[in-house]
Amino acid sequence: MSNNPAPGLLFVVSAPSATGKTTVIEQLVQLVPGLKMSRSYTSRPRREGETDGVDYNFVSRDAFEAQIAAGGFLEWADVFGNYYGTSWHETEARLAAGEDLVLVIDVQGARQVRAARPETVAVFMLPPSFAVLEERLRKRSSEPEAAMARRLATARQEVSAVDAYDYVVVNDVLERCVGELAGIVMAERAKLARRRAAIQPIIDSF
Amino acid sequence: MSNNPAPGLLFVVSAPSATGKTTVIEQLVQLVPGLKMSRSYTSRPRREGETDGVDYNFVSRDAFEAQIAAGGFLEWADVFGNYYGTSWHETEARLAAGEDLVLVIDVQGARQVRAARPETVAVFMLPPSFAVLEERLRKRSSEPEAAMARRLATARQEVSAVDAYDYVVVNDVLERCVGELAGIVMAERAKLARRRAAIQPIIDSF
Repeated sequence: MSNNPAPGLLFVVSAPSATGKTTVIEQLVQLVPGLKMSRSYTSRPRREGETDGVDYNFVSRDAFEAQIAAGGFLEWADVFGNYYGTSWHETEARLAAGEDLVLVIDVQGARQVRAARPETVAVFMLPPSFAVLEERLRKRSSEPEAAMARRLATARQEVSAVDAYDYVVVNDVLERCVGELAGIVMAERAKLARRRAAIQPIIDSF
Repeated sequence: MSNNPAPGLLFVVSAPSATGKTTVIEQLVQLVPGLKMSRSYTSRPRREGETDGVDYNFVSRDAFEAQIAAGGFLEWADVFGNYYGTSWHETEARLAAGEDLVLVIDVQGARQVRAARPETVAVFMLPPSFAVLEERLRKRSSEPEAAMARRLATARQEVSAVDAYDYVVVNDVLERCVGELAGIVMAERAKLARRRAAIQPIIDSF
């Protein structure tokens, strides 16, 4: 890496609960060299199997609210009583170092990020159908019916935001969905404006 | 395929002689389902190993000129005394049937196609350097020095057109270059505007 790498690309991916976004994005960052997942901050308690600094940066509500007040978040949300957010400083530092970052966030978070950084590439991931999503959600959840109904209502709201995104992929076949996302990352890297500086030495050799 | 498929995407790929574009594009269309190569018309004599209707549609100079006069070409050029061109009617018919097409043409041809169809996706392919291109050209050619010099001068002119393209890829490692082109095709297919109609049934299921 040179001393002054081209700034990295910022991708945001939104998808309703149970679309399978976590699995897709984990495979994506393993597949695509130089693409890293952004790590969110949260005030919710750490669950069994989660590691601080790996799954999330776990912080207290007070610490989170102090960062909100200081304007430290690129985006943040209060989701059912727990805070989630993305550090502005950390994101900018990683992008400035040339890392391409992918941020998995809800539609409100994506809206905040695009407002702050209009060059953000936004991808919406859909399940094959509402029926498939509902089935996946019921299988993996032991939540009471009211909580389930609330998740499904949220999913309905979220898909209505699809038209604000640059790309849309459907998670019907996992490998295909991962492949399409990898294609989007490669294409964004290959855009003329993005690659212009890198090819100048080739042009100059002619 | 439905009775009214979404119209196909048209990709144009330009590259200086000896960049390796033929090999790259042959591998690309094998790799990407639904992507087909457009077949050019030419007035030059058929070479050994070439098949009419496969490598090119071989036609007489008179027939070619009659088609030029009739406005039958999406783009055409007179290259060192031989005509090369792309049928407007055939291209439109294949796109209307939902095929995605890739057209390997020089920078003047690409300019004509983009003027006629501004939604065309244009990709420029570069060799790793001028030295590599010159070495490849000398290895595979038994042309006299004057013809070689003319090809190299043409290559110099062509790379100066790179800024009119949407994407740029470098053919340093064949698989990587093919993979990037496949990524560009996948990304263009996944653009919101492109995929909006296809996902409407999913949106409607919510």
